[in-house]
Amino acid sequence: MADIQQSPHPIYVAGEFKTAVDTLAVFSPYTQQCVFRTFTAGADEYEAAVTAACAARRSMRDLPVYERFRILAETAQGILAHRDELAVIMAREAGKPLKTANTEIERAAQTFQTAAEEAKRLPGEVLSIDWHRSGLHKDAIVNYFPVGAVAAITPFNFPLNLVAHKIAPAIAAGCPIVVKPASKTPITALTLAKIIDRAGLPKGALSVLPMDRAGGNRLVTDPRFALLSFTGSAENGWKMKQQAGKKKVLLELGGNAALIVSQDADVAAAAAKAVEGGFTYAGQSCIHTQRIYVERPVFEPFVSHFLDTMVKWVIGDPEKPDTDLSVMISERHAMRIESWVKEAVAGGATLLAGGTRQGCLYAPTVLTGVHRGMKVYAQEAFAPLVVIEPFTDFKVAVNAVNASNFGLQAGLFTFDSRQIRYAFQNLDVGGVLVNEAPSFRADHMPYGGVKDSGLGREGPKYAMMEMLEPKILVTDHRSGL
Amino acid sequence: MADIQQSPHPIYVAGEFKTAVDTLAVFSPYTQQCVFRTFTAGADEYEAAVTAACAARRSMRDLPVYERFRILAETAQGILAHRDELAVIMAREAGKPLKTANTEIERAAQTFQTAAEEAKRLPGEVLSIDWHRSGLHKDAIVNYFPVGAVAAITPFNFPLNLVAHKIAPAIAAGCPIVVKPASKTPITALTLAKIIDRAGLPKGALSVLPMDRAGGNRLVTDPRFALLSFTGSAENGWKMKQQAGKKKVLLELGGNAALIVSQDADVAAAAAKAVEGGFTYAGQSCIHTQRIYVERPVFEPFVSHFLDTMVKWVIGDPEKPDTDLSVMISERHAMRIESWVKEAVAGGATLLAGGTRQGCLYAPTVLTGVHRGMKVYAQEAFAPLVVIEPFTDFKVAVNAVNASNFGLQAGLFTFDSRQIRYAFQNLDVGGVLVNEAPSFRADHMPYGGVKDSGLGREGPKYAMMEMLEPKILVTDHRSGL
Amino acid sequence: MADIQQSPHPIYVAGEFKTAVDTLAVFSPYTQQCVFRTFTAGADEYEAAVTAACAARRSMRDLPVYERFRILAETAQGILAHRDELAVIMAREAGKPLKTANTEIERAAQTFQTAAEEAKRLPGEVLSIDWHRSGLHKDAIVNYFPVGAVAAITPFNFPLNLVAHKIAPAIAAGCPIVVKPASKTPITALTLAKIIDRAGLPKGALSVLPMDRAGGNRLVTDPRFALLSFTGSAENGWKMKQQAGKKKVLLELGGNAALIVSQDADVAAAAAKAVEGGFTYAGQSCIHTQRIYVERPVFEPFVSHFLDTMVKWVIGDPEKPDTDLSVMISERHAMRIESWVKEAVAGGATLLAGGTRQGCLYAPTVLTGVHRGMKVYAQEAFAPLVVIEPFTDFKVAVNAVNASNFGLQAGLFTFDSRQIRYAFQNLDVGGVLVNEAPSFRADHMPYGGVKDSGLGREGPKYAMMEMLEPKILVTDHRSGL
Amino acid sequence: MADIQQSPHPIYVAGEFKTAVDTLAVFSPYTQQCVFRTFTAGADEYEAAVTAACAARRSMRDLPVYERFRILAETAQGILAHRDELAVIMAREAGKPLKTANTEIERAAQTFQTAAEEAKRLPGEVLSIDWHRSGLHKDAIVNYFPVGAVAAITPFNFPLNLVAHKIAPAIAAGCPIVVKPASKTPITALTLAKIIDRAGLPKGALSVLPMDRAGGNRLVTDPRFALLSFTGSAENGWKMKQQAGKKKVLLELGGNAALIVSQDADVAAAAAKAVEGGFTYAGQSCIHTQRIYVERPVFEPFVSHFLDTMVKWVIGDPEKPDTDLSVMISERHAMRIESWVKEAVAGGATLLAGGTRQGCLYAPTVLTGVHRGMKVYAQEAFAPLVVIEPFTDFKVAVNAVNASNFGLQAGLFTFDSRQIRYAFQNLDVGGVLVNEAPSFRADHMPYGGVKDSGLGREGPKYAMMEMLEPKILVTDHRSGL
Repeated sequence: MADIQQSPHPIYVAGEFKTAVDTLAVFSPYTQQCVFRTFTAGADEYEAAVTAACAARRSMRDLPVYERFRILAETAQGILAHRDELAVIMAREAGKPLKTANTEIERAAQTFQTAAEEAKRLPGEVLSIDWHRSGLHKDAIVNYFPVGAVAAITPFNFPLNLVAHKIAPAIAAGCPIVVKPASKTPITALTLAKIIDRAGLPKGALSVLPMDRAGGNRLVTDPRFALLSFTGSAENGWKMKQQAGKKKVLLELGGNAALIVSQDADVAAAAAKAVEGGFTYAGQSCIHTQRIYVERPVFEPFVSHFLDTMVKWVIGDPEKPDTDLSVMISERHAMRIESWVKEAVAGGATLLAGGTRQGCLYAPTVLTGVHRGMKVYAQEAFAPLVVIEPFTDFKVAVNAVNASNFGLQAGLFTFDSRQIRYAFQNLDVGGVLVNEAPSFRADHMPYGGVKDSGLGREGPKYAMMEMLEPKILVTDHRSGL
Repeated sequence: MADIQQSPHPIYVAGEFKTAVDTLAVFSPYTQQCVFRTFTAGADEYEAAVTAACAARRSMRDLPVYERFRILAETAQGILAHRDELAVIMAREAGKPLKTANTEIERAAQTFQTAAEEAKRLPGEVLSIDWHRSGLHKDAIVNYFPVGAVAAITPFNFPLNLVAHKIAPAIAAGCPIVVKPASKTPITALTLAKIIDRAGLPKGALSVLPMDRAGGNRLVTDPRFALLSFTGSAENGWKMKQQAGKKKVLLELGGNAALIVSQDADVAAAAAKAVEGGFTYAGQSCIHTQRIYVERPVFEPFVSHFLDTMVKWVIGDPEKPDTDLSVMISERHAMRIESWVKEAVAGGATLLAGGTRQGCLYAPTVLTGVHRGMKVYAQEAFAPLVVIEPFTDFKVAVNAVNASNFGLQAGLFTFDSRQIRYAFQNLDVGGVLVNEAPSFRADHMPYGGVKDSGLGREGPKYAMMEMLEPKILVTDHRSGL
Repeated sequence: MADIQQSPHPIYVAGEFKTAVDTLAVFSPYTQQCVFRTFTAGADEYEAAVTAACAARRSMRDLPVYERFRILAETAQGILAHRDELAVIMAREAGKPLKTANTEIERAAQTFQTAAEEAKRLPGEVLSIDWHRSGLHKDAIVNYFPVGAVAAITPFNFPLNLVAHKIAPAIAAGCPIVVKPASKTPITALTLAKIIDRAGLPKGALSVLPMDRAGGNRLVTDPRFALLSFTGSAENGWKMKQQAGKKKVLLELGGNAALIVSQDADVAAAAAKAVEGGFTYAGQSCIHTQRIYVERPVFEPFVSHFLDTMVKWVIGDPEKPDTDLSVMISERHAMRIESWVKEAVAGGATLLAGGTRQGCLYAPTVLTGVHRGMKVYAQEAFAPLVVIEPFTDFKVAVNAVNASNFGLQAGLFTFDSRQIRYAFQNLDVGGVLVNEAPSFRADHMPYGGVKDSGLGREGPKYAMMEMLEPKILVTDHRSGL
Repeated sequence: MADIQQSPHPIYVAGEFKTAVDTLAVFSPYTQQCVFRTFTAGADEYEAAVTAACAARRSMRDLPVYERFRILAETAQGILAHRDELAVIMAREAGKPLKTANTEIERAAQTFQTAAEEAKRLPGEVLSIDWHRSGLHKDAIVNYFPVGAVAAITPFNFPLNLVAHKIAPAIAAGCPIVVKPASKTPITALTLAKIIDRAGLPKGALSVLPMDRAGGNRLVTDPRFALLSFTGSAENGWKMKQQAGKKKVLLELGGNAALIVSQDADVAAAAAKAVEGGFTYAGQSCIHTQRIYVERPVFEPFVSHFLDTMVKWVIGDPEKPDTDLSVMISERHAMRIESWVKEAVAGGATLLAGGTRQGCLYAPTVLTGVHRGMKVYAQEAFAPLVVIEPFTDFKVAVNAVNASNFGLQAGLFTFDSRQIRYAFQNLDVGGVLVNEAPSFRADHMPYGGVKDSGLGREGPKYAMMEMLEPKILVTDHRSGL
């Protein structure tokens, strides 16, 4: 840890920690100070990484299961062993409070452990082929083989676990991978690379290259990659899909997740979960709880519980152990949400709490009485902002949730089995959370969105399916003994 | 059957058989006569079809399993009941010999029957969520829901079964579908639409629209479709992927499939299968056996068996019951292959048989001594042409198979378990066929290619996976009884 | 049909319809007349059947999937084609009303159709073995092979479908089978044998042998059978388990199924389902709804709905098309239930309806105020009798359901997700039915009981698992190419 | 370790380490000295254990997945941490050479680690119910619940890992378990109990009770157990099945495993594996390689390789680190095999090596020219003895392998894919090992025998299936929103 602010962190190129020509300074969004330095990968590093990745395809394919398991499980343990170092790095470069960072660290360890276990359980099928006379004497198995080299681009908001969700399944599936971490949070990713390197991943199977957008674009268009796996904004993601050429594309994009609270719900529990879903890491999560629909008879008690809970949140320095909420990633984003809220209030919305800004720090904010056209409602806030609205008809509330370009996850508090089923059938999302905020994710579950929120699913087992290609072996036994 | 050549066949627009403004004449590649007339769908028909497809999304999603099963199983039976009619239509519009057409008819019935059964077996998962403390008291199920409306574009070469491979899984998965059949073979597809219509598919869930390329392009770019499923040429397929916007894309493209015959093989059996794989339907199949590598010690006997078998093939009128081989789909294609062969011979290749052309009829042709750069070797012949080359080292032969942009299927004749495993591990294809030609396909197996040969897999169960979207339901039971 | 009452029905011995020495007279429980005659298999027929079954093991194992499918699917169709004949036979020999018999016929067809489909989907696994260094270079598949000859003993109450649930999975799994149908209802089983025989099952793979108890015992103890599959009384079943030697044992036994109706339920719907569950085929079903627990606030309305519904049931001749309820299988059983009810009333129970007997016809009977020790409550009634009791605490009601030696299925009417989960977690049964009576069974679902109600599960896919034995093939590839 | 020979080892009763009235002395088969003392559980300890097991059923059922995982994974680590102590204990009480003991220790750790992972992956199913009109509006899930308390009886030969194969799946499945370890090797099992206890398994969920045969019989007949899981001799196992009452029974019994070596095989590799399979732990393994069939042309070279390899084995003190082979478990067993070999030689068999005995130490012995009736061939030797015979026809060799009452595993050395398939189809065993001895077992694979060799399969995932009971939840959604 002593070295955190010293010489620039080398980048990880094809199994080697290297310097490059261009230095990249990393600033704390809380102090606005430069807290780390590293390098931006140039064309040479890029070529070295991709060449090595392609060269490693066969050795990764043939890496025995017990080695994949060992590397992944040791990485999981390494992450926990470096818990304190990682937490401080995230607090500094991402402004993520230590508490929140620690949760992420545990989750990243789970992600690697799960991938370790899934490496033992690659899919496979045994098929009979003689469903028709023409298949007589034939049988078949299907094995799943790695697709080839993977290009991954990850965001700043979970600088450890969203990188884990790219690398861990790639190792488990036997795919070399080149990762471009977010430019604001490269040090967490590079520290993870160190842990993985120590676990003995074959050289060339992983590179972690901080790059600017142009560098990232190379990853998108380079035909040597078999798969592009991107987590980030919808706008960038869908553009990449069109530029990706022949490669497969996995997109984990954003949303404006909604929560419905029915009148039979445990209102206090719902409010507590909603506060957590709305303000954790300043709302900078793809499944940030942005829109809350509360059935009219419990609207007042819900709002009251919500506000009572949120005022207890400790706001401040991310490096203080009791801080619950801190800055947004940049002043630009804080100013954006400030202007959205002002626009909403000018348009008739009521501000129940918050609405103030100090630099990157935007106060936790609650609005009600918004209209569908307002940005705070229709777009992805990615900020410590929730909108709470009453409803009177459950089906209308479901329709309101669906009246969005996004469809990542949605929550519902009720004990009515009919509402649960109706919501599960009709909410256009990747996941429905009952008696939980839509912001919940278990790292092993299938996770991903519909509509503009993405394409494909992550979670190690599911991400691995994207990284694997089935191959069938049909054998004719006619000339048997 | 009496009506085959009479008034133009109506097209199938959102559950109605309708005429349109532009007439489409269908010519026999064998007689060059107009054998059928139908219509090209215009903008109005297109809009009606797509609007109805979108409107049918919920009713298809909610169609009970026993209804999906009934419709699909009755379609399978209807196809067999219309066996003679369908065979003649295919003979006339596709120049497909009756024998070959009958095989396709049986396979299309299997495709629908398989989809009927798979409709009962939609995937689903039960998950524990409490792998970590944060998931305590939660559990989950995953159901798979239809993605939405499907756009399908199908080729001329299996005018029935490749349409079946789009429609049957769509019905089974609960997706409305709009199909553009090949312009040269629309009548088979429209006859299938009649059979399905009689089975009582909800109106709007299926449209079959002959269209020109511009019309087809609308299917590709229209954002109302959730999935584009295309079977056809690699060139068109990959272009479509880039134009498809946010929708998912399934591509079943071409290849230049190879067969390896080792010296321990049953050489006579290998030659018999190779002839079948090389010349069935004049080689106009994605998995046409184009390249044959024979281990040196059995090269002569193999070629001899091969030529002996192929000369027994009856060439001629597709409507004659004993015809084995007939015309190619168009003179343009026959001339193309003629020029490729001439180019090869000029470049030093040896013509062992064939090489002649009469209009659309290209004689079954065997070359040896070709070079890698020659079109007959490197590109997709899609013609009654095979190249036979000797090899001395098995691994070199595997590399030769892989030295292609394509990777659909490959065959291998041997009884050596080490060769079988090596081939399965190392051939870059979607399927390896042992003691069978690469041209074999069972309709329920996962089928599809790697490299330029495509993206994704078909076979009802696998195509359905592309047409389904997982949705997870996580329930927190903390507030239990 | 004309021949139903004529010469004795031959029995089905190893693929041949044969007479035997001892004649077996079959009486109608409604008219007490002899309605059919057939034969009791003697030692010779038994030996012929078992010898042939053992001899057929390999041919059944090697029977191609498309043949298994064809035989099973044609049997399904044959059952529907003989619908009227089968219904009358069941009405005559089992006293089963035509309506009820027709439901069973449709279900038996489903059972065979499901087995046909499952024959295509035998389980199989692909495993990696290199989870530890010692498994390096090894991989594995698991195939499932038929266990060998199956001995089956079936009861009178579903004389068609419970025979189907033995034979259909045996054919699908590739096991020869010898069935002893109930002595009171052999003609239905023999008619089914005719249908299967016509479908072309290999000779020897099936025998249907009416036998007395001693004959049945031979099936239990004969070491040539690999599996004993018994459906019948708990007392007999558990005794057989101890006498079965080394063979596997599958037991589908009885129960005293319970239904809980919570106050938030749709009470009218609950009452309607409860009447159906309580009185269909005079309650002679393993999952007959015997015990009904109704939450106090809705007890009166439930009882009122229940009695209103049940009085509309038409009681009488099973061969009349509008009859809902007819006789029990024998006067002995009717007298048994009569005495149980009298005992209950003498002990303080209140008779809300029924309680009268005319020969085999026992009137639909409703009791309340019973004690746990009473036979009507604690034992399996297998009669048109229900006990309805109020409850005030849901968990106490669940405990009351569990306070039974049996545990087949249980029902629950509620919309409260917490109650549903609690019931699913805590009811000691094989199946929990929500908003449905416990008497519901879909033929493809896993069906069977815990505690004294049985061992193992049926439903074609699940019964097949009992009839299959896994065999693993581990291959070491160290000496590869 | 210091305490190994001091005060008697307490036994593990319902989570407490306790003394009992009767002392049990444990002798080294090598030195014949008493090396450990412990206690035989009496009626009181037995009752305490069973009562606690029954009481722990609900807490084990409700134990969260992350707790099951943690306990099992920590046990795996604990086993490795106590590697040296466990190895010495096994060397002393079982006479197992340290090398062999260390292999077993690694395997036991794998067994627990695998069970830890499988605890996260309990089976579950999502079913559609509307395959028929009667199922309209219904759907279903199947969860698997622990069957209840498990009684386990384990043998001396793998005193650690075969205990692990009972306890680990029980914990993973959520079943309390009472284990009776072999009376000759209780200390290994009790040491494992200590490791598990430290990992924090809920009290009552495990007891390890050394008992005499009468005590063991109580486990077999006690109706409070839901499952009896026995590993041991065929004679005892099948008797237990008949005495087990209503409980489920899992039997892992013995065999006389065979190996076929075809003439195309890698003969040196085959001989090396055969020596290992034949003499490891003095042949005291269920899958000891007892019968070896070698194709005539390679018979001499095989025997020569075999004898050359075996003479290099170091014979002697199990506690010396380079010892390969040591004593049998008792002089009684050594004398038994001595007499069998003498009987064989007297009957005409040729002794190629060995045949001598010193106390418990029986020299590695090779016979040829035996007859089928001889005990060395037909019965389970469970001793360092192999029989090597030539064959000329592969199918005859397969028949010879099958001419045994046993059917656990069989091996085959060949590269001929036809022989591999024929062997897999036709060998009546639970597992076929290709290019490996039949004595190989990976702890996660399905393992178990057919014929007299057992009933059911072990390997954590498969043993868990025996310990789990499916329960279906069918929900009718007709009264939906």
